[in-house]
Formats: sequence, structure tokens, C-alpha cells
Amino acid sequence: MPPADDTQEPRSRRERPAKPALTRQGIIDTALGILRDEGLEKVTMRRVAAALDSGHASLYVYVRNTEDLHAQILDVLLGELRPSVTGPGTWRDRVKGLLSGYGQLLMRYPGIARMALSTQPSGPNYLALVDTVLALLQEGGAHDRAAAWGVDLLLLFPTAVAVEFSAPAAKTEKAAALSALATKITTVDAARYPHIAPLSAALVSGDGGSRGDWAFDVLLDGILAANPPPAPEQDLP
Amino acid sequence: MPPADDTQEPRSRRERPAKPALTRQGIIDTALGILRDEGLEKVTMRRVAAALDSGHASLYVYVRNTEDLHAQILDVLLGELRPSVTGPGTWRDRVKGLLSGYGQLLMRYPGIARMALSTQPSGPNYLALVDTVLALLQEGGAHDRAAAWGVDLLLLFPTAVAVEFSAPAAKTEKAAALSALATKITTVDAARYPHIAPLSAALVSGDGGSRGDWAFDVLLDGILAANPPPAPEQDLP
Repeated sequence: MPPADDTQEPRSRRERPAKPALTRQGIIDTALGILRDEGLEKVTMRRVAAALDSGHASLYVYVRNTEDLHAQILDVLLGELRPSVTGPGTWRDRVKGLLSGYGQLLMRYPGIARMALSTQPSGPNYLALVDTVLALLQEGGAHDRAAAWGVDLLLLFPTAVAVEFSAPAAKTEKAAALSALATKITTVDAARYPHIAPLSAALVSGDGGSRGDWAFDVLLDGILAANPPPAPEQDLP
Repeated sequence: MPPADDTQEPRSRRERPAKPALTRQGIIDTALGILRDEGLEKVTMRRVAAALDSGHASLYVYVRNTEDLHAQILDVLLGELRPSVTGPGTWRDRVKGLLSGYGQLLMRYPGIARMALSTQPSGPNYLALVDTVLALLQEGGAHDRAAAWGVDLLLLFPTAVAVEFSAPAAKTEKAAALSALATKITTVDAARYPHIAPLSAALVSGDGGSRGDWAFDVLLDGILAANPPPAPEQDLP
């Protein structure tokens, strides 16, 4: 939209420009608005075109298809993370903070979380996230190749957790299912499940936050401790 | 169905029992048949009742709802795993074999994999899997509480990987997205992504099998190396 000009009288419909020019940013902003108000299922090429008062064929200049539109939305959202190698705390605090931020962002947009799991992201902000995690793993002493493969695993974990809670009404159902599991575990038949029974208190202890934090430590310690992956065939010098 | 009696003439319709009695096993077998032939979306109470020539209200004696039906199917499928603490190889070989088997099973039933991620399983065969993984982690020297929290993480990983490839046509799309990411990584601007560029060969190396195997080692080594979770408030003696 052109900037408002308060000094003029309202212009007639004929004199006003018919529509604002279509831009990538305008498409993404419109798509984000639909995402926030109506959910990812409604973010389609046709719906965005209608909201922009444009033919949906015009959108194809900027966006290949609905999948690509969703991928571009994810990448815009990842811009919020502002990944940085430097900052307060140890390398471990910083990488855990970044990964938690990624997980929290995906928890806010369940449809995006499912999409991030089923379609490998590859936008510029995702690459910036990968680059920063690599730098922090190397600062922590990880072998180069362990960092390279480890970054996948570190980003998969918060994505999977976000998807766990992403189905419609999943939070309630998942809580009920977890509670059913907790009841089964604490009343389990020790003869049938001899290793569960003595650990039942530990098995059901902790909330999502403390378990998530511990999981990141397991992944980081594992990346530092495990043998690095084999050298790739066409290794770089 | 009653056993066939070849010595008698075919009986009239009036004399034959109208329908086989409804059993839990019959319901599950029917549901598994529909799952194999038509996919999880078709496995509904109504569809199973129709296949069994029964009113769907009668099913509620055995199954609470469609979610419960799906959960019972998962547990029957998990019966194939036959988890065992003993066997050939080291504790690590055995736990990795078991987790890979779980992952392969979920890869065969994409809808079940999504359900296993969004609804916490708690059936008897799932508990047997948890019990065996706990035993193997303890055999490997894991702290009791690290084993208790670690089992969740170990089972989450193959579930998440199965869901990554579970969306309709996901295998093709995911492969295309991975290939797009690989191209971006190998041609990345080294000034913009200084940590990705020198690791590009390692970042795109390896197939799903070798990466999955390495991921299990990272998780196991991490569970052994990380500080154990805090003691639960109501610890067992």
C-alpha cells in the first residue's frame, strides 16, 4: 500500500492505484496472518491470492506451491531466533538456549512443526541456525564430522517434541495418555516387568522442561563422546 | 466360526449361527486387514463394525474409540519385536537391534508411526519393550535414573525418523527436499555460512542406515556420559 497522504482529499476510486504490487514480503506477511488466525491448513496459494486480491497464478512468480509457501513461512519465523555464536554463558548454555528457542517456536505453530519434520527445511535462516550450532559444537570440542552429523540430531529432537504435541486437541489427549502410562507404570506387575517396577518413580518423574534440558545434555555429551562418523568419500581438504 | 462338519449336509440358513461371536482378537485382526489394504484413516469403529457385520456399538465393549483401536493395533504389531534381554552380541548390539526393529516396524505403518508420536503408547507389548531397553541400559552401566529417562529418548528417535517419512508421498518429497538441501550446502556462500562451507562434504555424507546407527551410539554414549537426572521426590526404596 502506498503511504497515506493526509494533505489530500480522498481520491476517487478511478484515481487510486487498483492494488498494491505483489511482493514476496507481502505474500509472506499475508500467509503469516492467515496462519495465526486460521491455522496452517488454510494457508494455501488460493487463499493467500484471495486475501491479496490477486489471481493465484500471479503468486507462482514468487512461490512454487503450497509446500514451498509453508517452507518460506518457516524460514521467516526462524528469523526471530537470531542465532549467534557469541553471547553470555558457556557454549553449552548457548547451544541449549538456541535449540530450546527453536523448539518453542515450533510449539507455537503446530502445523509448521509437522511440516518441518516431514519436509527438510533449507532456507537461509535455517542454514544460519545450522551454521551457528556447528560453530558452538566445535567450540565445545566436538570432532568436525561429529558436529556435522550431530546438528541433524540436535534439530530433530525439538522438532519431534513439538510434533508430539501438535495434533488437533493433542495436548489434552497426550496428557491423558501420559497419565494413563504413568498409572500403568506405578502399578505395574513386578514379575512381568522386573526392570520397570523398581524404576517406576524415576520413569514418571520430571516435567517437559527438565526432561528436555536433560535430553539436550545427553545429545551433546553423546556427540562429544561417540566415535565420529566415517570420513566422507569426497572429503574436502 | 464353528469348525466345519463335512459329514452333514449343508444346513439351512435358519439353522446356521447368524454370525461369529465378536472377540477382541477378531476386531484387531479385522482392523489390521483394513490397515494393510487401505491405510490407517480407514481403520474406524464404523468400518471395522461393517467388516465384522456387527453394529459398531457392540465394538465399544472391547475398544473405547478409534484412538484406542489404533493404540491396540500398535501394541499387537509390537508383539512381532519379541524383545529379549539375552541374545548374541554386546548389550549395545542388542539394544540397537531392538530399536532398529522398532523403527523398521513403524516405517512399514506410517499412520501408526504418527499415532505413536502424538499418543503415548502404553500397551503390554510397549511396556515389554521399555522393560527390555531398561535392562540393556543397566547391563551397559547406565545409572538407573539415566536409564529411566533415556528410554523415552531412545524410543522417540526411531519414531520421529519414521514420521519424517510418513506423510503421503513423503518419501519422494523428502528425498527432493534433502537433495535441495544437499545442493545448497555444497554450494553455500562461505562468507555467509563459514562453519557449513568447510564441513559440506561431511554434512551431506552417509545414508539413513549409517546415520541412524551413529545416532543410536550418540544417544547411548550420551546416556552413559551425562549426569543422571535428579532423584524423584517420592523415590522408591
